Amino acid sequence: MTNAPQHSRELTITSAANPRLKALLGLRRRRTREETGQTLVEGYEEIGLALSAGVRPGTVYVCEELFSPAGRAGSQDIGHQDDLLARLRDDRVEVVHLSRSAFEKVSYREGPDGLIAVVDRIGVSLADLRVDGPDHLTLLSQGVEKPGNLGAMLRTADAAGVDAVVAADPVTDWGNPNVVRASKGTVFAVPAASATTAEALEWIRANDIRLVVTTPETDLLHTDVDYTGRVAIAVGSEKHGADRTLLDAATHRVRIPMRGKANSLNVAASAAIVLYEAVRQRDDR
Amino acid sequence: MTNAPQHSRELTITSAANPRLKALLGLRRRRTREETGQTLVEGYEEIGLALSAGVRPGTVYVCEELFSPAGRAGSQDIGHQDDLLARLRDDRVEVVHLSRSAFEKVSYREGPDGLIAVVDRIGVSLADLRVDGPDHLTLLSQGVEKPGNLGAMLRTADAAGVDAVVAADPVTDWGNPNVVRASKGTVFAVPAASATTAEALEWIRANDIRLVVTTPETDLLHTDVDYTGRVAIAVGSEKHGADRTLLDAATHRVRIPMRGKANSLNVAASAAIVLYEAVRQRDDR
Repeated sequence: MTNAPQHSRELTITSAANPRLKALLGLRRRRTREETGQTLVEGYEEIGLALSAGVRPGTVYVCEELFSPAGRAGSQDIGHQDDLLARLRDDRVEVVHLSRSAFEKVSYREGPDGLIAVVDRIGVSLADLRVDGPDHLTLLSQGVEKPGNLGAMLRTADAAGVDAVVAADPVTDWGNPNVVRASKGTVFAVPAASATTAEALEWIRANDIRLVVTTPETDLLHTDVDYTGRVAIAVGSEKHGADRTLLDAATHRVRIPMRGKANSLNVAASAAIVLYEAVRQRDDR
Repeated sequence: MTNAPQHSRELTITSAANPRLKALLGLRRRRTREETGQTLVEGYEEIGLALSAGVRPGTVYVCEELFSPAGRAGSQDIGHQDDLLARLRDDRVEVVHLSRSAFEKVSYREGPDGLIAVVDRIGVSLADLRVDGPDHLTLLSQGVEKPGNLGAMLRTADAAGVDAVVAADPVTDWGNPNVVRASKGTVFAVPAASATTAEALEWIRANDIRLVVTTPETDLLHTDVDYTGRVAIAVGSEKHGADRTLLDAATHRVRIPMRGKANSLNVAASAAIVLYEAVRQRDDR
């Protein structure tokens, strides 16, 4: 069904000038996210992953006209939004209905599917990242700038079974809506922390983790080191790569072989390649 | 120097309403690209790669105020634009100067560095893709929708030493400026063709190429097949994966192991993982 009954007590907003919509737009700014401790999650799939991870939204903004595939363009979802909405109501999440024009004003993705949730800020502190077991795998990114790259790395980290993702000196925050979107909601599935590089390196030392840093400045191939045991795989920023502090702290510096005319891989592609070399070695045992 | 001398015969445009700028904006549309046989390349690095690949732009649009790093935000380039401009003049490429406001109107990336070139359309026909040697490596993408994903795959394909990239039933064209941008100009470095799936499969058969298709619908891991010899690695669309025709034509169907809560990798990440498994096996020999 594409016209779920609207509960009588639920608020409906049709004016794009409504203060609640302005507050919603405000969450696109990092400062507002930090002040309010909240962020946005848009889309059926992403909100579903948040719920699976135990996240309970404060409010969900809904446009039922966009629930049916016919009502929108370019969406990847097949219209189970009614079920998700029922589940949110059962959890006593506040539901606010938006007109299509109001929803499209606050939506920040192509092909909106009629659901945007406000959730508490994402990310854990480094101190809360427990390192259990002999095979704990960490992805460490240093200074990554683009939300799309951070999100893509989270998605790959989830698939590779990474236990923790640490952003050292990140330019963006984990709650950035574009990180959440590019991560396809996996930001809720993988423990993700932010820290300074110094704090991240101290955490790595304290937990007896071997550090493998990718850099062009070495002859050792990424396939020539052992990724079993407690390992952190580190990638540097889009512009500058890993900095001297990170390189100096490395157990191994490795390079991904380059055979082409351009001289760099995208940072998310680099992370995918090295993480799956670790998966290969670990599966082989 | 950041104020290269402007040659007296060179055109200067300050009005954003100028017909040439309108024609430039028109090249963002696929139909206009197909009608004119031209496309846009923006940025020092990307234009440099085009020149290295033997591409000679028809016209270059220049805003020297944006050449110095101080004059712009977020660019990754360090200001060798003067040298590139001199080289273009030596090649008798038409140079058109734009005011900053006019340039920023036609620029389509963050942190413009003051250079946009118009080049002949990108991409070769399948018939022109010669398969030489016993280890020819192809990346085949089917139905990929997002220009960013196509561009990212090209960049990884270049790094992995891929000999040809074939887009089967692509939703976008190789000349899409966002493909060129996401590829970091590697679209000029790797032979790239478009075709129907049927044509691509016929080309694969005719050239005696083994076809390895990634899909979740198999138990065979991507690390369990042999990527030496003539091989094409195929990935499907973001929404639907590889279609039945492609799966039925596969020599091997392989899956990338997934250990996470979400159930898919980004298509460009999948391509990177499988391409670098091929690189690993080929380097091991």
